[in-house]
Amino acid sequence: MANDSVPTIAIAMGDPAGISPELLARLLAEPDIRLRARFVIFGDARILDQGAKVAGTNPDVRIASPESGIPADRIKPIFVDLKNLDPGEVTIGRATLEGGKFATDNFRRALVLAAQGEADAVFFTPFNKAAMRFAYPDYDDEIRFVRDAIGSDAPASEFNILDGLWNARVTSHIPLAEVARNITEERVLGALLLADSSLRAAGFANPRIAVAGLNPHAGDGGNFGREEIDVIKPAVESARRRGINSQGPYPSDTVFLRARNGDFDAVLTMYHDQGQIAMKLMGFDRGVTLIGGFSFPICTPAHGTAYEIAGKGVANFGATRAAMLLAIRMASERNGPAKRADG
Amino acid sequence: MANDSVPTIAIAMGDPAGISPELLARLLAEPDIRLRARFVIFGDARILDQGAKVAGTNPDVRIASPESGIPADRIKPIFVDLKNLDPGEVTIGRATLEGGKFATDNFRRALVLAAQGEADAVFFTPFNKAAMRFAYPDYDDEIRFVRDAIGSDAPASEFNILDGLWNARVTSHIPLAEVARNITEERVLGALLLADSSLRAAGFANPRIAVAGLNPHAGDGGNFGREEIDVIKPAVESARRRGINSQGPYPSDTVFLRARNGDFDAVLTMYHDQGQIAMKLMGFDRGVTLIGGFSFPICTPAHGTAYEIAGKGVANFGATRAAMLLAIRMASERNGPAKRADG
Repeated sequence: MANDSVPTIAIAMGDPAGISPELLARLLAEPDIRLRARFVIFGDARILDQGAKVAGTNPDVRIASPESGIPADRIKPIFVDLKNLDPGEVTIGRATLEGGKFATDNFRRALVLAAQGEADAVFFTPFNKAAMRFAYPDYDDEIRFVRDAIGSDAPASEFNILDGLWNARVTSHIPLAEVARNITEERVLGALLLADSSLRAAGFANPRIAVAGLNPHAGDGGNFGREEIDVIKPAVESARRRGINSQGPYPSDTVFLRARNGDFDAVLTMYHDQGQIAMKLMGFDRGVTLIGGFSFPICTPAHGTAYEIAGKGVANFGATRAAMLLAIRMASERNGPAKRADG
Repeated sequence: MANDSVPTIAIAMGDPAGISPELLARLLAEPDIRLRARFVIFGDARILDQGAKVAGTNPDVRIASPESGIPADRIKPIFVDLKNLDPGEVTIGRATLEGGKFATDNFRRALVLAAQGEADAVFFTPFNKAAMRFAYPDYDDEIRFVRDAIGSDAPASEFNILDGLWNARVTSHIPLAEVARNITEERVLGALLLADSSLRAAGFANPRIAVAGLNPHAGDGGNFGREEIDVIKPAVESARRRGINSQGPYPSDTVFLRARNGDFDAVLTMYHDQGQIAMKLMGFDRGVTLIGGFSFPICTPAHGTAYEIAGKGVANFGATRAAMLLAIRMASERNGPAKRADG
């Protein structure tokens, strides 16, 4: 926030039937997290209480009502109690319309708060896609929802982040049959520009971005496809002329080996599974998802709702913590170096 | 061999300018390897000597001339000295026409020996693709070369094997733009049949084969492509009706996590990088490549010629050893259980 010394993070409670409530209850109880930002959480206090019982923590929030407005102070996380889900309607491990309504309602309010400039970043605990679709049939992925919620057509993209290594993609949730025709010089360049600006927004001074080829062996000199020669390489060179530290295209079956060895800060892949296969193998439980390209960053753990272990208190907390730390870092960077010193 | 108690492995010396000579010199000096099979090696004894100097081993072979025929005994590995490459023509780290001629000549003779029934499997040390193309301009991959060399149009495929986990694929060295149209029920079923028979030929009694989807999230119920519903699932079911233990399709970004955990013996992927990204991340240096589907198995380490470390004696030997052990196991299985006991 412009008038505060730490950034404000808007938090949306995710699906109530999985591990989301316990993850949030644990997150809010982390002393160092509490110090680094002001929080405005949207959800139902009864669901948070249930999560706190599972996590064995005390989130220690200040309850606010949606009608009375959001207090400006930052002594405690502010919990906007929407009273939008009766715990009696939640069955652990089950995707429901009620759960989807709850999560979409919370998410929409968090997004609007940030779009209005009242928060510097949005964070959410995992959604269940089936439940989201019950409540919002057009739900393809989060980007589509965000566009609709805040009326933006900014060129947004999903980034996957693991231990400081970023994965960006040119295409995402489309059939593989449509990938090649969607790999244009303009799109590859646009993805490089967005990746570069998002990495810089997270504090990378001169991010090193490797670009994967589309075809086996990156086309093998044109023998197995020409997109590397005709489309991807020109886009990489165009990006370099704009001062972006991009390299490639490299064969996609070895580029992640080099990235894992520290040669790159990010890998731009041409399609969903090209990056996801690698990132999930390298650390399924630790990954963070960032939606970049809107006027504020949106962060969440990359894993799902983990229905099968919900309520048992065994959920791995690492990705949630990493996602929130990224949200805080990016929110702080938005406010400039002077603000960062407070963060 | 039908008239011997252990199988015969035909060995082709690979590219002379990389680590192939030292790998072979080390392989031939392994006492347990020497006990398990009869070997017929094609190459130039001077190049093997150079490899032996680097490896610090004594391959201890019996030299034979191509004119005098191959001795039937198996006391020592038989080295058919083709005198087909003067060491003075080899520059370490450089792909040349001479190197390509050497490797293609050796490979062709090893293949013909096996095709004639005089060997039970073929093994080769790494080739350099550029050098192979100098000598054989039509060289796309090994399968094409084998077809031409022995005049076979059998439905062959490349398998990648890592620590007992197999990866088979429906399509391979083709542009990504052409993958989807090549995913037909017939081809997926054919790949499953070939994978199953190859796994059984390597000693798996009832191989568990997971099938990857083509699209992100395995199509997400048809939202991101219908091949899983229309093509892949019917092929899996058809294979199951034939007694093949196949499952799926599963999302390709998590199927290898399950395979790594031991849930499957093999993963059938729809395209080259879908499997290669995962397999290389899981163990770039240890992988083995099997060409299955011809009347005899062909095995080689999955890594390349490693020009940058050639002659230094630091090459990792694990994949070479694993590839030879697979060749011996599959060759022994061909001869039936009675022969296996000798292997």
